[in-house]
Amino acid sequence: MSQASPGRISLGWYGKGVFLAAGAAAVTGVLTAGVSHFQRAEMATKISKVEEEEEGNIRERCKSFMSPPVTDIKVLEQRKDAMSTRMEMLIMETQAAFCKALEEADGGTFRVDRWSRKEGGGGISCVMQDGKIFEKAGVNVSVVFGNLTEEAAKQMRSRGKVLKGKDGKLPFCAMGVSSVIHPKNPHIPTVHFNYRYFEIEEADGTKQWWFGGGTDLTPVYIDLEDAAHFHKTLKKACDKHHPKYYPDFKKWCDNYFYIRHRGETRGIGGIFFDDLDSPNQEEVFNFVKSCAKTVVPCYLPIVYKHLNDSFTPEEKDWQQVRRGRYVEFNLVYDRGVKFGLATPGSRIESILMSLPLTARWEYMHEPKKGTKEAEMMEVVRNPKEWI
Amino acid sequence: MSQASPGRISLGWYGKGVFLAAGAAAVTGVLTAGVSHFQRAEMATKISKVEEEEEGNIRERCKSFMSPPVTDIKVLEQRKDAMSTRMEMLIMETQAAFCKALEEADGGTFRVDRWSRKEGGGGISCVMQDGKIFEKAGVNVSVVFGNLTEEAAKQMRSRGKVLKGKDGKLPFCAMGVSSVIHPKNPHIPTVHFNYRYFEIEEADGTKQWWFGGGTDLTPVYIDLEDAAHFHKTLKKACDKHHPKYYPDFKKWCDNYFYIRHRGETRGIGGIFFDDLDSPNQEEVFNFVKSCAKTVVPCYLPIVYKHLNDSFTPEEKDWQQVRRGRYVEFNLVYDRGVKFGLATPGSRIESILMSLPLTARWEYMHEPKKGTKEAEMMEVVRNPKEWI
Repeated sequence: MSQASPGRISLGWYGKGVFLAAGAAAVTGVLTAGVSHFQRAEMATKISKVEEEEEGNIRERCKSFMSPPVTDIKVLEQRKDAMSTRMEMLIMETQAAFCKALEEADGGTFRVDRWSRKEGGGGISCVMQDGKIFEKAGVNVSVVFGNLTEEAAKQMRSRGKVLKGKDGKLPFCAMGVSSVIHPKNPHIPTVHFNYRYFEIEEADGTKQWWFGGGTDLTPVYIDLEDAAHFHKTLKKACDKHHPKYYPDFKKWCDNYFYIRHRGETRGIGGIFFDDLDSPNQEEVFNFVKSCAKTVVPCYLPIVYKHLNDSFTPEEKDWQQVRRGRYVEFNLVYDRGVKFGLATPGSRIESILMSLPLTARWEYMHEPKKGTKEAEMMEVVRNPKEWI
Repeated sequence: MSQASPGRISLGWYGKGVFLAAGAAAVTGVLTAGVSHFQRAEMATKISKVEEEEEGNIRERCKSFMSPPVTDIKVLEQRKDAMSTRMEMLIMETQAAFCKALEEADGGTFRVDRWSRKEGGGGISCVMQDGKIFEKAGVNVSVVFGNLTEEAAKQMRSRGKVLKGKDGKLPFCAMGVSSVIHPKNPHIPTVHFNYRYFEIEEADGTKQWWFGGGTDLTPVYIDLEDAAHFHKTLKKACDKHHPKYYPDFKKWCDNYFYIRHRGETRGIGGIFFDDLDSPNQEEVFNFVKSCAKTVVPCYLPIVYKHLNDSFTPEEKDWQQVRRGRYVEFNLVYDRGVKFGLATPGSRIESILMSLPLTARWEYMHEPKKGTKEAEMMEVVRNPKEWI
């Protein structure tokens, strides 16, 4: 195994022998050349130990971020063992690793916007628009705190959390990294991931906390090898922590990313989980960390594999129709978007950066039997096992 | 005043003297040549008398429809004085008149789809896609009946209607005509209208009923003359029935078509009303009829005026960004869409035909000061009086 500096090493061979001379390894900083993606995914899960040791040196780690963290570095140093600090460092690292890997693939650079929320906290939005490879790529970090609104508190309660506020107030802290990448080439799928942590303080001082997240893929055309690679990489990350995680969270993902009015899933899924608060905070954090670390090895090999695939105007049109479905899901069902749009002080541009640059709605569009487009429809209508 | 056959008469002079040799008069069948649009709008409100006399001959009137009515003609003849019959005839007539006027402007033809709903009723969807003038034009009629779902009943109650069902069942009948027209040329605005009637039977046999509707315009660029023409035409139709209708329903429209998360209205408004059930059924129906009859005179003169306007790729892009906002409103806020998506057995293609063929979301798009695009933003951020 060769050690290399982040973002500047070879990814090695992927799939059918395509040589990938680029930086999907940025997320870990430790990957080898000349191994298959299966091996790479396995290794990605083994390096958390190395990075755990690094967790102490906050100031040093911040240097690799797209922007200084949302919380003042001094504050983070003062409470370096707090989960809120460790999670903020993780989401900042995930953002940086993913952005750098995408920049290397595309040749473009992310625009970095820092924003603050007058009610407390803020975020860092990284967006690349109309790049060479990516039509629209957004990687967003937010760290917000304040008092839960009644609407939000009700939402929590409906999810089984009984929360007792003091004078109706529930101080909370929520943070996460989320990303949606829409490539130009219809043979490169759209990817989405989101990892988040929630802390809430009740009247008696007890802290409730939970983690949520997931990574899922939305191809325009089915590529069985891509689907297997993506799901296997996620499964390896999950299996390290619990044998039930992958099957349970794969199912949750298919159920969550479901466009009910169409009877279709958004894509070919991945994993999704929420309200995760057991067996203990340390364990759940380590699981979330494993997931965050697989984002690059899940996606970048697929990007590189299809980088130079040619496509027809008809394939581009089909991509645009599928993008329309993406918009439908995000605006009608996505809990994060709905929560964001309803929360005063939200940064709308960061919430809606998940929407594609362009989309299309054709009346009564139905692909002809036996086409690649019909094959895609079959898959979104009947979720599959990919491994 | 000259009498003419529907869809084949001259519209006369409009605005700055553009001669419009086409059929915006189809909706009324009685319009004159050589008068201004102000005069035409006034006349349009005077002809309802003529058509009221025609209401008796159902079979004859059906001949001009895009398709036979949803309800069997024999049934309509048997209960010809029932409001449900009169309204179904009106919405079918409105659909036909508008479709024919648009076909004449475009040169294309509408695809006509009849559909039925297994729970009761059905509809007729007329869609023209990728025409010469219209990117996507949809004019939909639906006549549905059955028992109200609990979700729908709750929605009614929240709007102030206390409804007592028998064994939790509330037999209802809902019908309406709705339309959204998205032209290709960014100088021709998008128009939307919807007129609907709702009847519901309570446990004791009492019938509750109400009408709703509205017509509103969504330009990509502001044209003061168009805005004034559109609003004045609506005002004249309203003023015939009540002096408060136009000001009240203009305000309601601005409030309803509001994209809260953007702090923008969808367009430059028009009129909107709901739950209208006073002073009496006859009066409200006559008002709705006046509104339905103004759809063509509101919109077609604007279409013809800009038919040959040239536009730049930048203007087309701006149109696409505004189309994105249209999608946001329709998927996030529109009550009809939300109700439709949540109602089992709805015809999704008819509900979502209101979405544009194409739309665009640019991160942090903000027009430069002093541009025509900035002028549009100013208007949607601060609704105006147009007359």
